[in-house]
Amino acid sequence: MNNEDILLMMPGPVPVTPRILRAMSKPMINHRGAEFSEIYDDCREILADIFKTDNDIFVISGSGSAAMEAAVGCTIKSDDKVVAIENGKFGERFKLLANIYGDVVPLEFEWGDSIYLDMVEEKLAEGAKAVTLVHNETSTGILNPAEEIGKLARKYDALFIMDGVTSIGGDDVRVDEWGVDIAVVGSQKCIGAPPGLSMISVSERAFEAMEDIEKIPYYLDLKAYRKSANKEKTQTPYTPAIPLFYALQESLHIVMEEGMEARINRHKTGAEAVRAAVNTMGIQMFPNLDSCSGYSNTVSAMRAPAGVSGDDIKKDMLKRGIVIAGGQGRLSGKIFRIGSMGNITSRDILVTIQELETVLHKRGVVSNIGPGIEAANNVLDALL
Amino acid sequence: MNNEDILLMMPGPVPVTPRILRAMSKPMINHRGAEFSEIYDDCREILADIFKTDNDIFVISGSGSAAMEAAVGCTIKSDDKVVAIENGKFGERFKLLANIYGDVVPLEFEWGDSIYLDMVEEKLAEGAKAVTLVHNETSTGILNPAEEIGKLARKYDALFIMDGVTSIGGDDVRVDEWGVDIAVVGSQKCIGAPPGLSMISVSERAFEAMEDIEKIPYYLDLKAYRKSANKEKTQTPYTPAIPLFYALQESLHIVMEEGMEARINRHKTGAEAVRAAVNTMGIQMFPNLDSCSGYSNTVSAMRAPAGVSGDDIKKDMLKRGIVIAGGQGRLSGKIFRIGSMGNITSRDILVTIQELETVLHKRGVVSNIGPGIEAANNVLDALL
Repeated sequence: MNNEDILLMMPGPVPVTPRILRAMSKPMINHRGAEFSEIYDDCREILADIFKTDNDIFVISGSGSAAMEAAVGCTIKSDDKVVAIENGKFGERFKLLANIYGDVVPLEFEWGDSIYLDMVEEKLAEGAKAVTLVHNETSTGILNPAEEIGKLARKYDALFIMDGVTSIGGDDVRVDEWGVDIAVVGSQKCIGAPPGLSMISVSERAFEAMEDIEKIPYYLDLKAYRKSANKEKTQTPYTPAIPLFYALQESLHIVMEEGMEARINRHKTGAEAVRAAVNTMGIQMFPNLDSCSGYSNTVSAMRAPAGVSGDDIKKDMLKRGIVIAGGQGRLSGKIFRIGSMGNITSRDILVTIQELETVLHKRGVVSNIGPGIEAANNVLDALL
Repeated sequence: MNNEDILLMMPGPVPVTPRILRAMSKPMINHRGAEFSEIYDDCREILADIFKTDNDIFVISGSGSAAMEAAVGCTIKSDDKVVAIENGKFGERFKLLANIYGDVVPLEFEWGDSIYLDMVEEKLAEGAKAVTLVHNETSTGILNPAEEIGKLARKYDALFIMDGVTSIGGDDVRVDEWGVDIAVVGSQKCIGAPPGLSMISVSERAFEAMEDIEKIPYYLDLKAYRKSANKEKTQTPYTPAIPLFYALQESLHIVMEEGMEARINRHKTGAEAVRAAVNTMGIQMFPNLDSCSGYSNTVSAMRAPAGVSGDDIKKDMLKRGIVIAGGQGRLSGKIFRIGSMGNITSRDILVTIQELETVLHKRGVVSNIGPGIEAANNVLDALL
């Protein structure tokens, strides 16, 4: 099957609209010139709206993991305690990262389980320089309680470092209101751009913490990003990935044209449609939620039905031209995931549900084709 | 002036041909799927030819500075001595980088001067884990003696870490023959792709040195790059900048179609034409060369003529639609630089020389327009 005919319904990279792809075909420019500066300023201004923050915002030429490393590498030194909350693969990644730079206090929950706030408070009460949280745990489809963790971080005077890689730009995130000292997002997720860039907001409190750090990673030195951003012509400290900045700018314009409120609503409705459909098909959601967690509004994780591996479903769907995701790491085979982030339309969701229902029908999991589609449609109708 | 009409004659980012720009407009793909794997394999195979190496080669989604940091961050720990050779801005950058991870033994020459091999040997004889060298010092237009430094590194059993950011793909580089343990190149230089990727070759000796390092940077962990590259489907450890991989692959195909021998000859001839032209115009080259150094074959650095700043020349040229470079850091204003790397043609060089001659004529530096063009043409005729 031709790539032009493949539909990406993974939790990133997401499909990139032709308008954004076209933006990348512009000629290269001097990355130290006025024009690059204007692009970068424009992006930073829109990103501040999306992050809901007055903090400094930078764009790093590197994936979300690079920005996560910048967050801990610039603020944490070897004897600093970091409470690393983990309830999925990206929580684990943050823990591994924090462990390179600091003294990790692990706080591990089952992958797919909720985070218990009392246990977070207990760890923070013992004293910590920072707490790391994955807001939207892509590996398990859980929306973690960022606002509550933010309150605890302030209460115990810890830096709040948040991975918003698959929430910012698609779900409700309020960096300043929640007291997020460092927030990170990837380009290839809710913002709808190609992969390769990550964006990071940094509070004054976080910058103050950096004064204490003797050896900061070079490529990911947030102080260098700030210094370059404050030059007469806004710059990046190292050569930026110019075509990806063209794409990011176009993507951000698309976000603004839609408006964040409408965009968040579209994401919520899309994920709700997926849940309604799989529920109708008798498929269980994977997350085990308590009252302060929620299902992700950008990626839905489902348990593989009895006798069928999540990877089988993924392969069946791929044959039909739709890329969904399986489980990562210890969840391999046990779950399957459908991303509904970025510029994904109701039509994209409907065709995915329709093919999923067909695949499950062929495998004997559901007896009829139709109810899942109808359930999804009933939810998506709200967007009409 | 419209960007489509601007000619980039900086030492990177270089102009990207429409064929390469078009390659970026393909749809996104699953970065864990077979197709990405094939692209990455294809790139790595061609890069091995260009680097002239059997060592492992990886592509990092990040600039050349990221790859330079990977080189020292993965092999050097705090008490390891690193002889950091500096005769320009990028030598200084390597020194700063090495200083984050190890114990730097600085070896500083005037920016623009040659490297004295006896002094390198003296430092290495005192014992060092590694030596860092910038092969083609972009800031000063000097080609440093990589082969000779390689011999000294072997003699004193030090790792040889080489920044080939503006030489590999345009000039003669022989990683295995010269004993380069880690070599680094950027996408936006001689290879002719957009900025945002860097490529790194790593010897077994370098991998062995990594066994000794307790805490390796996460995003730049070369062991993780190797592990992912050796999976059944070749992968990168973190989400790759997919459109830039499309562009890189296309750029590398263009390199192979031209052939490295022809490409090196074209670069040498292009830089020689620039030198012949400025010499005819009475402009002095900036480098102060001894017998084992050479003028760069990819970027030419000239002293600003009496009474004129290098930045004035840069500004005059920019008004005429040609972007050249001034001096960096302490060389600001004192020099101006013309890049002639990547897919730059004889016509691009000629029009640059013609405009330079006009600019210098208007500023009263040269009395006639014509001799510079003729001198450049006489050299470039060899490529006809």
